[in-house]
Amino acid sequence: MTNWNNLDTLKSYQELKNVKHINLVEAMSGAKGAERVGKYSVPMAAGLTYNYASKEVDDDVLKALAALADEAQLTEKYQALYEGEVINTGEKRMVLHHLTRGQLGKDVIADGVNKREFYVNEQKRIAEFANKVHSGEIANAKGEKFTTVVQIGIGGSDLGPRAMYLALENWAKKHDTFKMEAKFISNVDPDDATAVLNSIDVAHSLFILVSKSGTTLETLTNQSFVMDALKKAGLDASKHMIAVTSETSPLAHSDDFITAFYMDDYIGGRYSSTSGVGGAVLSLAFGPEVFADFLDGAAAEDKLSTNKDALKNPAMLDALIGFYERNVLGYPCTAVLPYSQALSRFPAHLQQLDMESNGKSVNRFGEPIDYVTGPVIFGEPGTNGQHSFYQLLHQGTDIVPLQFIGFRNNQCENDVDIQGSTSQQKLCANVAAQIVAFACGKSDENKNKNFEGGRPSSIIIGDQLDPKALGALLAHFENKVMFQGFIWNINSFDQEGVQLGKTLAKKVLAHETEGALAEYSKLLNI
Amino acid sequence: MTNWNNLDTLKSYQELKNVKHINLVEAMSGAKGAERVGKYSVPMAAGLTYNYASKEVDDDVLKALAALADEAQLTEKYQALYEGEVINTGEKRMVLHHLTRGQLGKDVIADGVNKREFYVNEQKRIAEFANKVHSGEIANAKGEKFTTVVQIGIGGSDLGPRAMYLALENWAKKHDTFKMEAKFISNVDPDDATAVLNSIDVAHSLFILVSKSGTTLETLTNQSFVMDALKKAGLDASKHMIAVTSETSPLAHSDDFITAFYMDDYIGGRYSSTSGVGGAVLSLAFGPEVFADFLDGAAAEDKLSTNKDALKNPAMLDALIGFYERNVLGYPCTAVLPYSQALSRFPAHLQQLDMESNGKSVNRFGEPIDYVTGPVIFGEPGTNGQHSFYQLLHQGTDIVPLQFIGFRNNQCENDVDIQGSTSQQKLCANVAAQIVAFACGKSDENKNKNFEGGRPSSIIIGDQLDPKALGALLAHFENKVMFQGFIWNINSFDQEGVQLGKTLAKKVLAHETEGALAEYSKLLNI
Repeated sequence: MTNWNNLDTLKSYQELKNVKHINLVEAMSGAKGAERVGKYSVPMAAGLTYNYASKEVDDDVLKALAALADEAQLTEKYQALYEGEVINTGEKRMVLHHLTRGQLGKDVIADGVNKREFYVNEQKRIAEFANKVHSGEIANAKGEKFTTVVQIGIGGSDLGPRAMYLALENWAKKHDTFKMEAKFISNVDPDDATAVLNSIDVAHSLFILVSKSGTTLETLTNQSFVMDALKKAGLDASKHMIAVTSETSPLAHSDDFITAFYMDDYIGGRYSSTSGVGGAVLSLAFGPEVFADFLDGAAAEDKLSTNKDALKNPAMLDALIGFYERNVLGYPCTAVLPYSQALSRFPAHLQQLDMESNGKSVNRFGEPIDYVTGPVIFGEPGTNGQHSFYQLLHQGTDIVPLQFIGFRNNQCENDVDIQGSTSQQKLCANVAAQIVAFACGKSDENKNKNFEGGRPSSIIIGDQLDPKALGALLAHFENKVMFQGFIWNINSFDQEGVQLGKTLAKKVLAHETEGALAEYSKLLNI
Repeated sequence: MTNWNNLDTLKSYQELKNVKHINLVEAMSGAKGAERVGKYSVPMAAGLTYNYASKEVDDDVLKALAALADEAQLTEKYQALYEGEVINTGEKRMVLHHLTRGQLGKDVIADGVNKREFYVNEQKRIAEFANKVHSGEIANAKGEKFTTVVQIGIGGSDLGPRAMYLALENWAKKHDTFKMEAKFISNVDPDDATAVLNSIDVAHSLFILVSKSGTTLETLTNQSFVMDALKKAGLDASKHMIAVTSETSPLAHSDDFITAFYMDDYIGGRYSSTSGVGGAVLSLAFGPEVFADFLDGAAAEDKLSTNKDALKNPAMLDALIGFYERNVLGYPCTAVLPYSQALSRFPAHLQQLDMESNGKSVNRFGEPIDYVTGPVIFGEPGTNGQHSFYQLLHQGTDIVPLQFIGFRNNQCENDVDIQGSTSQQKLCANVAAQIVAFACGKSDENKNKNFEGGRPSSIIIGDQLDPKALGALLAHFENKVMFQGFIWNINSFDQEGVQLGKTLAKKVLAHETEGALAEYSKLLNI
């Protein structure tokens, strides 16, 4: 029996608020700090480690957080989710993205179908299709191989797949699994599609139209834009395009496409990288085996997330610490800082994943709540960020909790030794240095050069960003966000906040406006 | 006589805190809202307009803000700055980036040189060099034209120039001024340089090494990385590389480069897009005339910023409203949301510009202050963001002030009409709709679909993002950040907060670590 109670009704939350805050500068200094680095660490899947030594926690805080995890029944709620309970209460839907990469509990049957089998089957169909494209069995009208794949989608159909593609592009090139270049068209700004179309050879390009509902304004507009360009090039658009959509959408079973691959309403856009939404483009770009490894990494991390012991459950622990920083310590933002150029767009994906899931003001029953929920998420890769916004992170008037990610080895395995160290060593030295600089600070009589420290961070460390590690990393954050939604007793799986803007935009285009909206429309010449 | 006083000593600040806050939902509804859209608007340079109708201000708030601008002597301090006073008190330097694009006050002589003449002369040298590269007079060893330019730099030598390049790339292609493709290497992660080098034809590539001090670790490492690659390709690296640096740096007057262009210590990295740091790469990519137009737009905006009437000074007004949101209304973040794919990296540039300038906890004399300073800045282009983090902006528990940017026309002038409107119209309709949705909200009995509204935004509107408009946009934000620094009485032109990390990273590489730093280093295999 799961109890869905608001955070502020939990006894353990009141108790947590009474636990003494730690002094991070003291805790991380000297031998005590060294001991914490060894102690406050938990293994993730795919050889990754979540280290939280530089977070503002100690055994007392952790004990109170674990008690809250128990009282809030986090693992029970996770189990309810992956076994098919209607967790998306707003839209009255199950939440099944975990099934795209594994079977954790009992079988989930929906609409008379075993959903795990359904997702596996779609993935198999995608793999077969990708292999045929790579072999040239599926080719353009002249029988020539497709060399480029272009994903047309927005939001979850864009940010996740794009971030995953960029994360593995150089790895795949190094490991001889790189099959086709991928490009992405997302914005309704026509300059986006124009620039992408100008950069490719359309005669040898395969387009993937991705829209679950088949009604996304931007995506349908860009579809027409691309079809127009294909026609102008004398090509049959229907021989250059596939769809990823739900079986009930207007895009399903259409003659406009070579074929279509299916997902369903139980997978939210921002959780769809491991479904056909990510599967088609990644299987085409890198081969189905790479995508299968990516799914394996995610599945292994999902399994770790079932552990009832919060201290052995990295996603839950990360969620609990983040909640503590938000609701007890009062920090409104979190920065995600991957020390890996391949993860350049991973923060943008997490920004959607986290802010769209947990930027809510009502609980899962639609009742207003009296505590803060999801924080603002932002980030850029290091070391670049060090030369940009880190100034504020070190010496600004607000504290911003940090989430570092680092790998011992780079992807291209190409490096140079300069002044006694490789670039990779310099990269790793910098992330280690930053963690300690943020935590411990450094006193200086010149207050302009003084670092107060006490700025908390965690780090996820891996050997190399390969497909399995990427899958584990993605699932870690998906599950972190899910656990935080459970703590706040909100529905992390709908997004009603995007509706009003859509409605008003339609009114503007129909010239049915008045008041301020009419004036703004005039200013913009609509 | 300028008085450099802390914000909390200003009489006008105490008075401002007593001014009644407005109810934005009420203010922006009905005829009153329509009236505000017409009234709360101020022209910028290059045909741009700054409209702040949907900000939480009314005539009373604006009057109090204008009084604060007077008491804080904002225009006087700006004048002191552009006439060469030592405004960068920490590093004891003048702050002269405005001189790269215009002469506002009396001549500034430093080190026996008229600085405006110096910057103009360097720009002229760059223009001549670029013209020779374009004509083929300067070519590779085989006498073949260079086709690609690669900037090697980090922070201000990367984010600004990269954002400006992306902002004008499609415009230049449409207007037949596109000369060479530009690429950027910044991160010390060796995968960054490897990926860029794999994507270009090095035999026809010209590299620009950008480092003011000539000692930036990442940039020198990447220089060696590139020189190594050039040598391996059998090329003479010194015939493929130029430098942009200060005359006193180790890179000046070196045989490693075809030539060098100079800047100086009076231009901070994040303010250097209009110096040779942006000038070389943009003049090579688009031609010197395009860069000259960009400077003209910036100069015109700088001139507007001298207006003592805050209501006619868009950068100052933007600064005042942002400060009001931060210090009186208590909002810790600001999102920058350009409805233009070309501005995809403009928020990342502003993130550095703003957070590195104003993320400070001491005043310009190095004394601790008792009020908050620079906010967290983040953003992504619309309409993409609408399908991502806007959920939190609309329905999250915190209010995030917004800064929209929109253009009536796109850059490529290529569009399709679908369902009765073009993509450009859809783009503009969306930004208009969002502003009103955020300000006014919409009541719904289903609290999950309820929008409280009251979420403030401004918009900068232009006809088209061309070089002049981009220059004006850039200068607007540079001057906004400067004025906010004056309000907070901080030094916006140093960045001591980046030093500690550098020092500790050196210790890690020298294996001179102990405590937590030694343990983190071990975890990362250094």
